[in-house]
Amino acid sequence: MRDFLPADKAKREHALAVIRRTYAAHGFDEIETPVMEDASRLHSGLGGDNEKLAFGVLRRGLDADAVARAAASGDLGSLTDLGLRFDLTVPLARFYATHRAELPAVFKSIQIAPVWRAERPQKGRYRQFVQCDIDIIGDASPLADVELITATAATLAALGLTGLRIRINHRAILRKLVETWAIAHNDYERALITIDKEDKIGADGVAAELVELGLLDVSAAPAAAADLAGLPNDGWGLLDARATVPPWLEKDAYEQLVAIRDAVAQAAPDVPLVFSHNLVRGMGYYTGPIFEIEHPELGYSLGGGGRYDGMIGRFLGTDVPATGFSIGFERIVDLIEVPEHGESDSVVLVHDADATPGALIAVKTELVARGKRVRLERRTKNVKALLERAAESGYGAFAFVTAATASADQLEFKPLTERH
Amino acid sequence: MRDFLPADKAKREHALAVIRRTYAAHGFDEIETPVMEDASRLHSGLGGDNEKLAFGVLRRGLDADAVARAAASGDLGSLTDLGLRFDLTVPLARFYATHRAELPAVFKSIQIAPVWRAERPQKGRYRQFVQCDIDIIGDASPLADVELITATAATLAALGLTGLRIRINHRAILRKLVETWAIAHNDYERALITIDKEDKIGADGVAAELVELGLLDVSAAPAAAADLAGLPNDGWGLLDARATVPPWLEKDAYEQLVAIRDAVAQAAPDVPLVFSHNLVRGMGYYTGPIFEIEHPELGYSLGGGGRYDGMIGRFLGTDVPATGFSIGFERIVDLIEVPEHGESDSVVLVHDADATPGALIAVKTELVARGKRVRLERRTKNVKALLERAAESGYGAFAFVTAATASADQLEFKPLTERH
Repeated sequence: MRDFLPADKAKREHALAVIRRTYAAHGFDEIETPVMEDASRLHSGLGGDNEKLAFGVLRRGLDADAVARAAASGDLGSLTDLGLRFDLTVPLARFYATHRAELPAVFKSIQIAPVWRAERPQKGRYRQFVQCDIDIIGDASPLADVELITATAATLAALGLTGLRIRINHRAILRKLVETWAIAHNDYERALITIDKEDKIGADGVAAELVELGLLDVSAAPAAAADLAGLPNDGWGLLDARATVPPWLEKDAYEQLVAIRDAVAQAAPDVPLVFSHNLVRGMGYYTGPIFEIEHPELGYSLGGGGRYDGMIGRFLGTDVPATGFSIGFERIVDLIEVPEHGESDSVVLVHDADATPGALIAVKTELVARGKRVRLERRTKNVKALLERAAESGYGAFAFVTAATASADQLEFKPLTERH
Repeated sequence: MRDFLPADKAKREHALAVIRRTYAAHGFDEIETPVMEDASRLHSGLGGDNEKLAFGVLRRGLDADAVARAAASGDLGSLTDLGLRFDLTVPLARFYATHRAELPAVFKSIQIAPVWRAERPQKGRYRQFVQCDIDIIGDASPLADVELITATAATLAALGLTGLRIRINHRAILRKLVETWAIAHNDYERALITIDKEDKIGADGVAAELVELGLLDVSAAPAAAADLAGLPNDGWGLLDARATVPPWLEKDAYEQLVAIRDAVAQAAPDVPLVFSHNLVRGMGYYTGPIFEIEHPELGYSLGGGGRYDGMIGRFLGTDVPATGFSIGFERIVDLIEVPEHGESDSVVLVHDADATPGALIAVKTELVARGKRVRLERRTKNVKALLERAAESGYGAFAFVTAATASADQLEFKPLTERH
């Protein structure tokens, strides 16, 4: 968990404003849910491994007897009734189930908010971090996936990020693939975790690990490795006339992906969308297309998502199709540059100690009314250090105010230049 | 704790953006601290009664033995190591102590963030609510208080709130007042709680309650009631030539308040600043001027603050002057109107089911690039209901898109009018 000083906070707020504005322009509506959810909901099985990382909130009004009973029964869960959310998807499903009657038939939401996971502190991982999610609930068609992908790509572009690719795959393709290798149904999720490593350990490595884990028969290993290794580099072209359709390819799902690719290519030709047969996305709730944002120079994804048609039904009792895309805000914010804002609109008034508060604030108020951002600074011995610090904070000009200054019109502004 | 649907969330984000922008224009810099603080810090005594309302976070990795030991020893505090902040002042003091070397000598902070209190649910009280605080750390002069008051008044004006008054008092005046009545030093804080009720129970009521509580000798009650009742209605004028200075008036403190009043009158003449001898503000850490925003028609304050020179020293080991002003965001947001934004810039595209995703999103992208906010809606049997809902969400025009539409230039937009 981190403190953010003014320069970092300004950068974060800049990025959040761009994200909020771009998603809103694309027709999504922002909602907000409370930071705490019922513990039972956070531990309903929908959150996968993240459930184990949820911070629990101690039940109010517990006495020593109740605590002793919890210890004796071993039911430590009874100590907590609330917890901090570990993602924005479980709260969204709960929100939708609660408010469905007040929402449009197809609901397009924005959620921009912190989540918490009790991870071991390590580089690039935080226990509190911001997620930016868009979701479309109530539309089973690929149009929803296309709208998510193009809105997300537009947001990344608005943030000034270039050179990104979006990888796409389909859960049905992954299912058919492991089915072909005669892996037992119950072992699918475990097998996918290994397939996810192909970029690191290679097709042979994946086959070997599946054998080692006892999921794949050793006799099937060469064919499995060949299936993985035989794919074209660009990820598309499996259904081209010249190509042989691999036996493991779930054709309907692949055609859905091709339709999504064609629509994205028509509507947003700047976004490379790459079919990646080994893209997995960890969560068990995905049912259809899944996507991930890839930066060519970074070893981690910048966001991802996918279709999760079965999940909201768990809360609502009736199935509702849904698909979502999440931006990893903490990773994004490290990559962006904040544009130099109109620095001449930010001015510092360096005032003598004997200038009266009334006159000083009156001059400041005059300048604020003219659209300036105004910082008051009492004159110190080392004015130079004071001005350098103001320049670093994005202030572009300064003027001295004395006890004789009666109006902003008497000020002589000089430019402040930041030393790099 | 509440969910916020799109209309409410948009209103909240509008208000937050106005507050953020206005405080920044007045030279304050925003910071952010984590939602969770160490439990020991939250229970250091600085948070007053709010400490009892802090949500505790269960220590990770507790086993049944550790829980049994906590129950046996009665030290239930050992179950938690973190807690949710109940205000933004304790985290600010911790933040300043941690980062002092990286901050300017006089640090002017903005904090806009949620806090949590485990209150019993009741009308107008929430367990999660947003506070907007500005603080000036490192300036002991009244200039800091003037800057807080004028920046806060400007923010309330920017939010469109009118008819407000700011009440001001000084902790030294309250101390001298109860001293004059021969109330024991240890009973001061309890006596202040009773004085705070004068507007409701009257001067005689305050004196009677102080006697009943055993804080005031019954023989001193008439004089105490007379002290309270003898004040001018407008709250000022105690040092006018014609007025007799009351024996209980701490003159230096009152002169500070007069200086603040004169400066505010010169710099921001629209803000009525009223001396209220019975304004108390609950927190024990206040040391100097205290202020509160009063709405003539509401029975509760919209915000408040004051000088707390001793508090940061508790974390830092060396005294640092500080003063702060907090806006009660949840109360403010209920009072404001969101200005009608350029509705013609928000358009709905009602599309036939057979329009292809690629063509649809391409048309949408064209419009977004022209600065529009664009919502896609699949045509339903009841188009009228769909359009009425869009109008309620602030959309100002709509057009039909068919499978034949190839460009935004072919669209015929018609106005959407909201039915009130």
